[in-house]
Amino acid sequence: MRIICTILIVLVFTACQKENHESSGSGHPNLILTEKGVSSMRASLGSVPLFDKTVEAVQREVDEEIDAGIDVPIPKDLAGGYTHEKHKSNFFIMQKAGVLFQITKDERYAIYIRDMLLEYAELFPTLDKHPATRSYARGKLFWQCLNDANWLVYTAQAYDCIYGWLDNETIEKLNTELFRPYADYISLENPRFFNRLHNHSTWGNAGVGMIGLVMNDEELIDRALYAFDIEGDSSLMDNDGGSLNLKGYKEGGFLAQIDHSFSPDGYYTEGPYYQRYAMYPFLIFAQGLANKKPELEILEYRNGLLIKAVNALINQTNSQGEFFPINDAQKGMSLASRELISAVSMAYHFGGNNAGLLSIVQEQGRVPLNDSGLAAAKAIADGKAEDFIYESVELSDGAAGDEGAIGIIRADDLTLVMKYAKHGMGHGHFDRLGFLLYDDQGEVIQDYGAARWVNIEHKDGGGYLKENHTWAKETVAHNTLVVNKDSHFDHDVKLADESAGTPYYFSSGAGIQIVSAKELNAYEGINMHRTMAVLDIEELEKPLVIDLFSVQAHEETRYDLPLYYLGDFMSTNQEFQSNNDLSPMGENDGYQHLWQEAQSNLVGEVFRFTWFNKNRFFTMTSAVRTGDQALLTRIGANDPNFNLRRDPGLIFRRTGGNTVFATVYEMHGSYNYTTEIPLNLFTSIEDLEVLYESEKYNVIKFELKSGEQYQFAFSLNNDDSSSNHNIAVGDTNLAWTGVYDFKKINN
Amino acid sequence: MRIICTILIVLVFTACQKENHESSGSGHPNLILTEKGVSSMRASLGSVPLFDKTVEAVQREVDEEIDAGIDVPIPKDLAGGYTHEKHKSNFFIMQKAGVLFQITKDERYAIYIRDMLLEYAELFPTLDKHPATRSYARGKLFWQCLNDANWLVYTAQAYDCIYGWLDNETIEKLNTELFRPYADYISLENPRFFNRLHNHSTWGNAGVGMIGLVMNDEELIDRALYAFDIEGDSSLMDNDGGSLNLKGYKEGGFLAQIDHSFSPDGYYTEGPYYQRYAMYPFLIFAQGLANKKPELEILEYRNGLLIKAVNALINQTNSQGEFFPINDAQKGMSLASRELISAVSMAYHFGGNNAGLLSIVQEQGRVPLNDSGLAAAKAIADGKAEDFIYESVELSDGAAGDEGAIGIIRADDLTLVMKYAKHGMGHGHFDRLGFLLYDDQGEVIQDYGAARWVNIEHKDGGGYLKENHTWAKETVAHNTLVVNKDSHFDHDVKLADESAGTPYYFSSGAGIQIVSAKELNAYEGINMHRTMAVLDIEELEKPLVIDLFSVQAHEETRYDLPLYYLGDFMSTNQEFQSNNDLSPMGENDGYQHLWQEAQSNLVGEVFRFTWFNKNRFFTMTSAVRTGDQALLTRIGANDPNFNLRRDPGLIFRRTGGNTVFATVYEMHGSYNYTTEIPLNLFTSIEDLEVLYESEKYNVIKFELKSGEQYQFAFSLNNDDSSSNHNIAVGDTNLAWTGVYDFKKINN
Repeated sequence: MRIICTILIVLVFTACQKENHESSGSGHPNLILTEKGVSSMRASLGSVPLFDKTVEAVQREVDEEIDAGIDVPIPKDLAGGYTHEKHKSNFFIMQKAGVLFQITKDERYAIYIRDMLLEYAELFPTLDKHPATRSYARGKLFWQCLNDANWLVYTAQAYDCIYGWLDNETIEKLNTELFRPYADYISLENPRFFNRLHNHSTWGNAGVGMIGLVMNDEELIDRALYAFDIEGDSSLMDNDGGSLNLKGYKEGGFLAQIDHSFSPDGYYTEGPYYQRYAMYPFLIFAQGLANKKPELEILEYRNGLLIKAVNALINQTNSQGEFFPINDAQKGMSLASRELISAVSMAYHFGGNNAGLLSIVQEQGRVPLNDSGLAAAKAIADGKAEDFIYESVELSDGAAGDEGAIGIIRADDLTLVMKYAKHGMGHGHFDRLGFLLYDDQGEVIQDYGAARWVNIEHKDGGGYLKENHTWAKETVAHNTLVVNKDSHFDHDVKLADESAGTPYYFSSGAGIQIVSAKELNAYEGINMHRTMAVLDIEELEKPLVIDLFSVQAHEETRYDLPLYYLGDFMSTNQEFQSNNDLSPMGENDGYQHLWQEAQSNLVGEVFRFTWFNKNRFFTMTSAVRTGDQALLTRIGANDPNFNLRRDPGLIFRRTGGNTVFATVYEMHGSYNYTTEIPLNLFTSIEDLEVLYESEKYNVIKFELKSGEQYQFAFSLNNDDSSSNHNIAVGDTNLAWTGVYDFKKINN
Repeated sequence: MRIICTILIVLVFTACQKENHESSGSGHPNLILTEKGVSSMRASLGSVPLFDKTVEAVQREVDEEIDAGIDVPIPKDLAGGYTHEKHKSNFFIMQKAGVLFQITKDERYAIYIRDMLLEYAELFPTLDKHPATRSYARGKLFWQCLNDANWLVYTAQAYDCIYGWLDNETIEKLNTELFRPYADYISLENPRFFNRLHNHSTWGNAGVGMIGLVMNDEELIDRALYAFDIEGDSSLMDNDGGSLNLKGYKEGGFLAQIDHSFSPDGYYTEGPYYQRYAMYPFLIFAQGLANKKPELEILEYRNGLLIKAVNALINQTNSQGEFFPINDAQKGMSLASRELISAVSMAYHFGGNNAGLLSIVQEQGRVPLNDSGLAAAKAIADGKAEDFIYESVELSDGAAGDEGAIGIIRADDLTLVMKYAKHGMGHGHFDRLGFLLYDDQGEVIQDYGAARWVNIEHKDGGGYLKENHTWAKETVAHNTLVVNKDSHFDHDVKLADESAGTPYYFSSGAGIQIVSAKELNAYEGINMHRTMAVLDIEELEKPLVIDLFSVQAHEETRYDLPLYYLGDFMSTNQEFQSNNDLSPMGENDGYQHLWQEAQSNLVGEVFRFTWFNKNRFFTMTSAVRTGDQALLTRIGANDPNFNLRRDPGLIFRRTGGNTVFATVYEMHGSYNYTTEIPLNLFTSIEDLEVLYESEKYNVIKFELKSGEQYQFAFSLNNDDSSSNHNIAVGDTNLAWTGVYDFKKINN
């Protein structure tokens, strides 16, 4: 604490000292920082703890770099190598130094940036394309234009911070010898990078646009917003597998990215892991535009879509603030990331001061050093923070919001996610109608995520691993139906991109929440319809999850329904034969990576399976048909470099035609390792029965051990809330109104 | 906070109201609570936060039970069943109610205890032995006398608390119809339970002694302290595999338990998991004796051994306060356990007010409601708490301290444990010279622990699993040498119990700490000698661990040296062939539970193996000989009920005669999941070379990637600190004084 005070005193003192030595007549900073904002920040120093703490941390970091000296090496390496990492570090530090110069008025920071930029201005004209040839769009400082665009986005901010302090000669030199040619390089000379709809291009647009805003270069700004006309006929794929067809393409640029990247709910088709990465250029360029081109009303564009997108992102996290790892995603990425630290404060500041966002900012423990960050930190200091309320929500996919969705249900500590969105392009997984389940401690039923150790050189340089394609993307790696051992869409990205899942019903009513969707294209001639309901059952300690996976298909179809439970298998009511000699379960579609550790020919009415994870018990209860099997699997075969986690799985196997897989998941009990006392370690579900199934209806009944019986009926083809349904169930007639009927029934 | 205050006000008020209504002329309480202590507690109410907090929590718990009403069911069930758990809960609640009665003087608590005891007094005379026949010593309320003794230990405390409040008639009834017969039952009628040296008997001794102290029954006290004479010739095993030979046995009783259970350093041969359980009756009976029989000076017995034992227990924990899981032990048991909450405060109060213990009490978050607890809570409130310093320590085993030891080295965040103690009787594992390694986040190189889910009925009722014998106890399940695929001592407990490891050298000097021990009996004709050194190397971020496992054996011996690293295999410098078709690696000695996932015929000078766990990197570097192999294993074969964790292992395999396995373990770097930046992810060790090996000396040299070279020489047969050593290493002569020589050498 004493250290903080000392630093702040020095800051304030330095600030006062320098105030009159600098002219600010130029109007800069006016990109992300503003003159007014800077005055306010300086006035607030020492009185807003979270802001002060961030200033202190950033100052420590930048001072260390200044002490270490400037290095602008000749580009040579790929990501992970020295020159790549150095140029990357340079732009981060310059951006921070710029902010510190404005806040402290300490010229050391301005001098550091100027000197570094002059070195870049010397280097740039000497550079040909980067020597590494791996990218479809090679950069100058980096192996791919994407990173060059990152450099411009951050460096533009630094440049803006010292623009008013620089002499005209230096400005002229930097503008004409470094920035304008650099911006032209990543746009005009790399249309395949700049002129398409892709997160890479968003960075390109933002980089060009932001440096244009700093230099008041209307041509660059215009190019960033609207792209430029190009004629071409190349039909290439980029390195992510994204389409690069530029033929007749005239709709690029930043506004088009907003139009096409997000659904009206702010969902991003590649999923939250990539949305997090993609959001930064959207938001930072938007801040610059909001400051310098208010007439564009960029933050109101498409009903305030950019702020909505931040909220959508926040909603796609578990109790630890970690993003749902759907599609290609490394687990562990979270609201604590650099991008979200910037985004959440911005959403607070520009999005109507939602006090719930402040608790997330508190958790992040730092704020961006700009108007948004100061506003959030001040509000927190004023005690305005409230808990963020995570509500059940369906986020539509597709630019028009009509191409599938993901459904997120929150109930008590439970989070259920079902995915019936678009494929997600090159980073998509073949997982239509797949689901994830969390409790307050983390994953209960997991999505594998990507097979990748990002930036960890041990693992093939830190890039995507071969097993990402052969395992992580395959359908059998997900909690959804595999037909005849083939992945959805025959593992064809192009085919998968052409259609989306079909949302059927979503409701977040009190006591019962339902997500229901269809998938009609993943397998030819096969209609799949999954309905998951989260129910408050008064006799149970936690909400219960019903899972009805209804399929219409020809006879003799072989179904595998995997469940990637996390933790240790405890017990089952069925007899399993375990295998000591293991072989891969197949040749392709992911089965080549699975070993079959045990199997059971299921008998009786239900299959009950209890597992244990992090002090909690979980039980799956499934209705059994004659001939059903259950297989216990382990990931790891055909994995010569041990790239895959040896996680367990459970496959429910059935052969038949039209059918429904009926399951309930119960979260129950606990265990204490120091008292060694388990509580409620057995399931409360005694029985589960499918009372009726057709392509129109599913009706199930379940019974608790205490004797209570519940019945759930669902209409599969008519979601009208006023429609009347009437079906014969055994000897009795069941009638109800609306899409579902759920009730306790008398014995 | 408001709730706490309200409760305290009620407490104080109730206390004042009742104070004069009760006579305290009887001298009770005087067992664990004392009249003076109670006055002090009552006077402190409201001013000692940790004590108040505990009172509040206990009161909430007991009040709930009182509201639920008394149930004293007819005994029927085994552990986990209703009658067992109810009688167990009854004695815990009675003990707490007794304390609350003394603190609050609220008669509800006394009435509750009295009424329950009267129900027990009605039930007891009607009981034959417990109907379940699983135990060698069946109890009355419980299936084994052990639990009946637990009941007496806790109930004696409750009884003492209301003794002065009861009328003489009730006392007479309880003494003669319940307590004295019960005490006789578990002693005179069950000599095999009461009269041996075993943790079960300690409970028996304490139960009989404590109820004797309450009733002033000198005969019982005497019996508890010194056991009783018996003639017998039974030569049975108890249910733990412990010896039950009573022939000529006349040395039982509490004092003999102290004599034989602990080494002079306070180590308990079964290991800390069982020591934790065993400590409670030792300490609680000792408190009673200290209060009522101060002339015994029980807490000074054997140089204050009981308090030393608490300190030994605390020293056997990792950074999370969890006990080292050596021998049969469930991981997760920790300083937070009920027994340690009682023991740590007692060690503070009776053991010289070591302020370091207070930080542990703080971490525990509650105190025992007695003089010790009040003392600790007061000291904490007075700001006296200091961090507990975990020092490197060698804890001798055996009653005389001359039967092996465990060595614990602490350096920076690192904890290294090497085990060369006695076998540990029925709960021992065949793991001579095995080691465990921790960092501040937990296990780095793990001991499997026991194959058991304590009290979790899903897993064979929560008892020891078959796999505990077939896997967890076997040598190959540990980080130590397996010869010719056989476990130490041919998996013969009796044989193993006959000898101990041989401590050779232990030093905890600055910059270099060494533990070295021999094992001469585990394999006939084979001498094993392991030396582990923890070194501060200025160029490295963390201490480095050297591991020299020297063996003298005939040619063609097949060595397997397993390493149970925890986490994900990252990379290696050797070529591994992975296996898609897996079979068990053997038929017995634990190999039947292992699958071999990959193997490598090692080439070159060193075998380097890097893994990743919880954001950290770890690298093992081993010196390679021609013909060496490495195998990557996975636990799980022959495990039909999925009782075993699918953990990975690495086996270093060599065939030969006299040899040394030379390895260094480096903990390095980190990874951040939100910045996705790895630091220092490659080992700094370039090379490792065995310069000299014989049965007298090991000399190794290792080189860092930065070029520095270090040399470590160790004398295997002369640990005299003044002895001179002189050996030819290549062309040069190496001379040093003392057991080891470690130095940076010039290139």
